[in-house]
Amino acid sequence: MSGPEKMSGVLSPVITPFKADLSVDAERLVRQCRWLMARDCGLAVFGTNSEANSLSVEEKIELLDALTGAGLDPARMMPGTGACAIPDTVRLTAHAVKLGCSGVLMLPPFYYKGVSDEGLFRSYSEVIQRVGDERLKIYLYHFPAVSQVPITLTLIERLLKAYPDTVVGIKDSSGDWGNMAAMLKQFPGFAMFPGNETLLLKSMQNGGAGCISATANINPAAIADLAANWQAPDAQERQDDMNGLRTIFQALPLIPAMKAAVAHYSGDAAWERVRPPLVELSAAEKAGLLDQLEELGFDMPGLAETQAA
Amino acid sequence: MSGPEKMSGVLSPVITPFKADLSVDAERLVRQCRWLMARDCGLAVFGTNSEANSLSVEEKIELLDALTGAGLDPARMMPGTGACAIPDTVRLTAHAVKLGCSGVLMLPPFYYKGVSDEGLFRSYSEVIQRVGDERLKIYLYHFPAVSQVPITLTLIERLLKAYPDTVVGIKDSSGDWGNMAAMLKQFPGFAMFPGNETLLLKSMQNGGAGCISATANINPAAIADLAANWQAPDAQERQDDMNGLRTIFQALPLIPAMKAAVAHYSGDAAWERVRPPLVELSAAEKAGLLDQLEELGFDMPGLAETQAA
Repeated sequence: MSGPEKMSGVLSPVITPFKADLSVDAERLVRQCRWLMARDCGLAVFGTNSEANSLSVEEKIELLDALTGAGLDPARMMPGTGACAIPDTVRLTAHAVKLGCSGVLMLPPFYYKGVSDEGLFRSYSEVIQRVGDERLKIYLYHFPAVSQVPITLTLIERLLKAYPDTVVGIKDSSGDWGNMAAMLKQFPGFAMFPGNETLLLKSMQNGGAGCISATANINPAAIADLAANWQAPDAQERQDDMNGLRTIFQALPLIPAMKAAVAHYSGDAAWERVRPPLVELSAAEKAGLLDQLEELGFDMPGLAETQAA
Repeated sequence: MSGPEKMSGVLSPVITPFKADLSVDAERLVRQCRWLMARDCGLAVFGTNSEANSLSVEEKIELLDALTGAGLDPARMMPGTGACAIPDTVRLTAHAVKLGCSGVLMLPPFYYKGVSDEGLFRSYSEVIQRVGDERLKIYLYHFPAVSQVPITLTLIERLLKAYPDTVVGIKDSSGDWGNMAAMLKQFPGFAMFPGNETLLLKSMQNGGAGCISATANINPAAIADLAANWQAPDAQERQDDMNGLRTIFQALPLIPAMKAAVAHYSGDAAWERVRPPLVELSAAEKAGLLDQLEELGFDMPGLAETQAA
């Protein structure tokens, strides 16, 4: 296999900061990514939790340029590049490859529903051929609850046969362990990342590659540490702690809740901003969240210092 | 009310032709639009049936420029401009307004599911304020089966209160007459277009504005004629004929089926091309469709001549 090595470990679908006029805030994003990378957490920027589909291709290119321009290592970047329109996907993907990103996380086109595996195969195929670069490494993005366009085992099998050096892994956000187990069994060497850290230990025990999870925005060190030390005697205990934190966030609108937490622990209220159609937490939701986190003794060490730098 | 008059009658979500390399084919689109306009059919270009969400913003701008540049009347154009990302929606909408389009058809942002009316209100609001042009007339686009993001009566009520001169109508592709009847009753003067000509007569009898329907690509003259003459004694008979044709197309993947019909009746096989994730009809599906159309004595008069011009 030529090009970058397969990615592994923990990546964060980094939340995206906005300025008061809702334009993207590259400087805050760079600082947040430094904080995550210092905790051994890779950068799956432009994921669902990044509000990536609320950003234009131009904005994503601007942010990716800012990240690499600030010296963050593209070998630890897996930007989301899948859009509804092939030209958009090709443009952003080619740019990510040019900047040296080790991989891209690619949603299928998600407007039309009930499309066939043949249509999705053609879609990925067209993108791969147009990008036309052997450094391109695609991680498929299976998130049926949101995209409403599933990536079936049959489709993966066909893509692996046609593009074995390019289609190298998947983020599975279905929450369905049966599907993940089937992939691990059927596609040896295919890098499988559950989209939720509650399945991290189980996944590592069965040959998974790591995880790409929303709450890696909040709890990166603990999640990365478990991924690195999943054979440690206290691994299950660590997994259980992690799940408790996840439960708190998951009971709320997840993206606004993570932004509220980052705003609180960084001391920078600007982080609360979301782009419509999302809405920030209500005052009551926010107070409830912070109370629960305090009760847990939760902290985000170093965040305020990094964001103030 | 300042700016363009409210639109009415029949509009076609014009199917989009592609060249062999799948790039957009402005010349074929211009000719198709001439054929539709000559049959009293307005141009709801960039609708679902136009594969609009498989086109980049740049491609849509290029096509819109080509249409107005060819002398087609923007007073009869209602391009689809709603995208997932506000900057994309604003860019295309502002361009359509600048070109003089009488209205735009605006999907809500459709990636995130389960979003609140508050979030959707903010989304439309942000677009309206950024475009900042009193000539802007928005027709909301309610298509829950595909977008998975419904536009509720509560949201419409709030938008009408805040932007009475801008939010002027809706295309309702829910197929749910109860919802359409409720809008006609609750929002007098709001231009309601069913997204399907099978509800055209019923809608006209209850104060509807016309219809915006896929099969207006195939059957524009008959549909436009019924909209204009819905009080004629044979109106129900015409409606029934129309429904028969619709049934044939609806039994197949609709967009590829319409493209196959246009390819056949124009004598121009290039029309069969679709962009992934869609797939053209199989040979058997196509033969079956054309047999059924022949049996009905169906034709698309003038199409071959217009496309050859």
